[in-house]
Amino acid sequence: MKPLPIIPDHPIGPRPNEGVVINYEAFFERQLSGLRREGRYRVFADIERQAGRFPRALHHGPHGTREVTVWCSNDYLGMGQHPEVLMAMHAAIDRCGAGAGGTRNISGTNDYHVLLERELADLHGTGAALLFNSGYMANWATLSTLAARLPGCVVFSDELNHASMIEGIRHSRATKLTFAHNDAADLDRKLAALDPGLPKLVAFESVYSMDGDIAPIGELCDVASAHTAMTYLDEVHAVGLYGPRGGGIAERDGHSQKLTVIEGTLAISFWPYMIPFSITVDQAAAPHSSLAFMFWGEGLFVFPLMLLYTVVNYSVFLGKVRHTGEHY
Amino acid sequence: MKPLPIIPDHPIGPRPNEGVVINYEAFFERQLSGLRREGRYRVFADIERQAGRFPRALHHGPHGTREVTVWCSNDYLGMGQHPEVLMAMHAAIDRCGAGAGGTRNISGTNDYHVLLERELADLHGTGAALLFNSGYMANWATLSTLAARLPGCVVFSDELNHASMIEGIRHSRATKLTFAHNDAADLDRKLAALDPGLPKLVAFESVYSMDGDIAPIGELCDVASAHTAMTYLDEVHAVGLYGPRGGGIAERDGHSQKLTVIEGTLAISFWPYMIPFSITVDQAAAPHSSLAFMFWGEGLFVFPLMLLYTVVNYSVFLGKVRHTGEHY
Repeated sequence: MKPLPIIPDHPIGPRPNEGVVINYEAFFERQLSGLRREGRYRVFADIERQAGRFPRALHHGPHGTREVTVWCSNDYLGMGQHPEVLMAMHAAIDRCGAGAGGTRNISGTNDYHVLLERELADLHGTGAALLFNSGYMANWATLSTLAARLPGCVVFSDELNHASMIEGIRHSRATKLTFAHNDAADLDRKLAALDPGLPKLVAFESVYSMDGDIAPIGELCDVASAHTAMTYLDEVHAVGLYGPRGGGIAERDGHSQKLTVIEGTLAISFWPYMIPFSITVDQAAAPHSSLAFMFWGEGLFVFPLMLLYTVVNYSVFLGKVRHTGEHY
Repeated sequence: MKPLPIIPDHPIGPRPNEGVVINYEAFFERQLSGLRREGRYRVFADIERQAGRFPRALHHGPHGTREVTVWCSNDYLGMGQHPEVLMAMHAAIDRCGAGAGGTRNISGTNDYHVLLERELADLHGTGAALLFNSGYMANWATLSTLAARLPGCVVFSDELNHASMIEGIRHSRATKLTFAHNDAADLDRKLAALDPGLPKLVAFESVYSMDGDIAPIGELCDVASAHTAMTYLDEVHAVGLYGPRGGGIAERDGHSQKLTVIEGTLAISFWPYMIPFSITVDQAAAPHSSLAFMFWGEGLFVFPLMLLYTVVNYSVFLGKVRHTGEHY
């Protein structure tokens, strides 16, 4: 594309005359200037983590490199530098090499993935688990698929749900109704107002990261059950921190079996490994894998998975938890 | 949620009577049965790659484990088991530990990411590059953001474009027009029929994976330029295989500078590392980072990035290519 003439004040929009030029560069520059003016332009800190020195790291800035303490990490427990975690990664690289080698359809399902999915299903007491390559995609793909596949489905979404959940619901094109944050009574009223024969899905989080408050999971599940609604719980800020085995708030409070789908992550508390994961849970009768494998079976999309080493690390963490019980 | 009564033939849909139950389990089981009947139910092969034995691997099946040759890998060049790649991964783990430790906003921008983005920008001769955690997300986020930000934008999409591009365009809610596959004349006709003052974006791939054919990049860019349209090229099946430095078909044919945005991957030819990446290119005037950083600046979403080791590997590969010239 040849360089476009600079016409800074040229508006973008319909212009019926021939020979017009459009200055995309100037348009985007104006948009960015607006972001800068509003303080919303993001500059990423160039950080170099130091194995064994958590939470210290090197910060590479315009005026040189200095040592800093990272106070805003997702590596809550420092597991990303746990010697056993790193040893397990070294061993997996030596054994299998780097990378999955393909999507899950074409030779990209490594035995490590299979073992990890089994271990995660066991952790949550469910029939199956399914890995995604980010928590964002897990929420997006699962909610959009579930709600889209159920004819006439209505999704009840906590008003403070994460953007990935909102986008997934939006993508399903199902009707979405929001209920007041953590308010089981409001959810009950809104469910009661709906045709009882419609399929329904209630989606919420356990720990809300911005406010730090915790959902009344049992109450919300009971209300959902009374109205024959499925439930979807995002536990990304709780797995690894709560529950006898780190299964999250639902495990801590004994509500795991009330939930239809649980989504978690390996990227935060368990250890800040490279990748979050999703747990898709089929809570009811055999065959237990129904919901879990539907997402792949649908051919919605398939990602190369990246959890080559995680089952080993995961065991390490569970071992640590069982032995010390130090985190809850 | 309490177990729901099994009513296999109960249809899901509006039913005005109270006391109805909805058998989600039976519904999804019927859907899965349909997939199985049509041969579309996917079963993943449980594969264990063997470092140093590419393309041989172990296959774990219901009747035991046996050695197989993987013919359907994305690891085109076997770089996932290249000794220098694995050595670089070991070194990075020893130096920084595992994981990014956060999203890019919160201490998750590792120095390795920054160095890799610089190297990728240099490879494509562009001002900036931006990493995503999958090729799917790169296409989805970039196309949806670009098309959504430009008021009245019309996107021209090759009829064989990948699902991730189609979803991104759909998410932008911009008008989408398809043009005949690899047909510059058809694109020209359709662009000519449009109000010349509208912002336009032409999106296509270089190598189409299902048919293996190659786009006439130069012609498509010339047509786009004549109608003042931006261009977006998906090079995921070409980077690492074509061009003097592995920059893809655009580099091989000398068209890199004609493109507005190029998207590539680290997951296929370069080496089947855990993660694809995206290159977002701002092709025009300074500051070169405009488009690239817009996606983060917009706050659309931020992922923990996972490319902790890739810049080292990338250098290894480029070195290999320069020394042997064996792949093109």
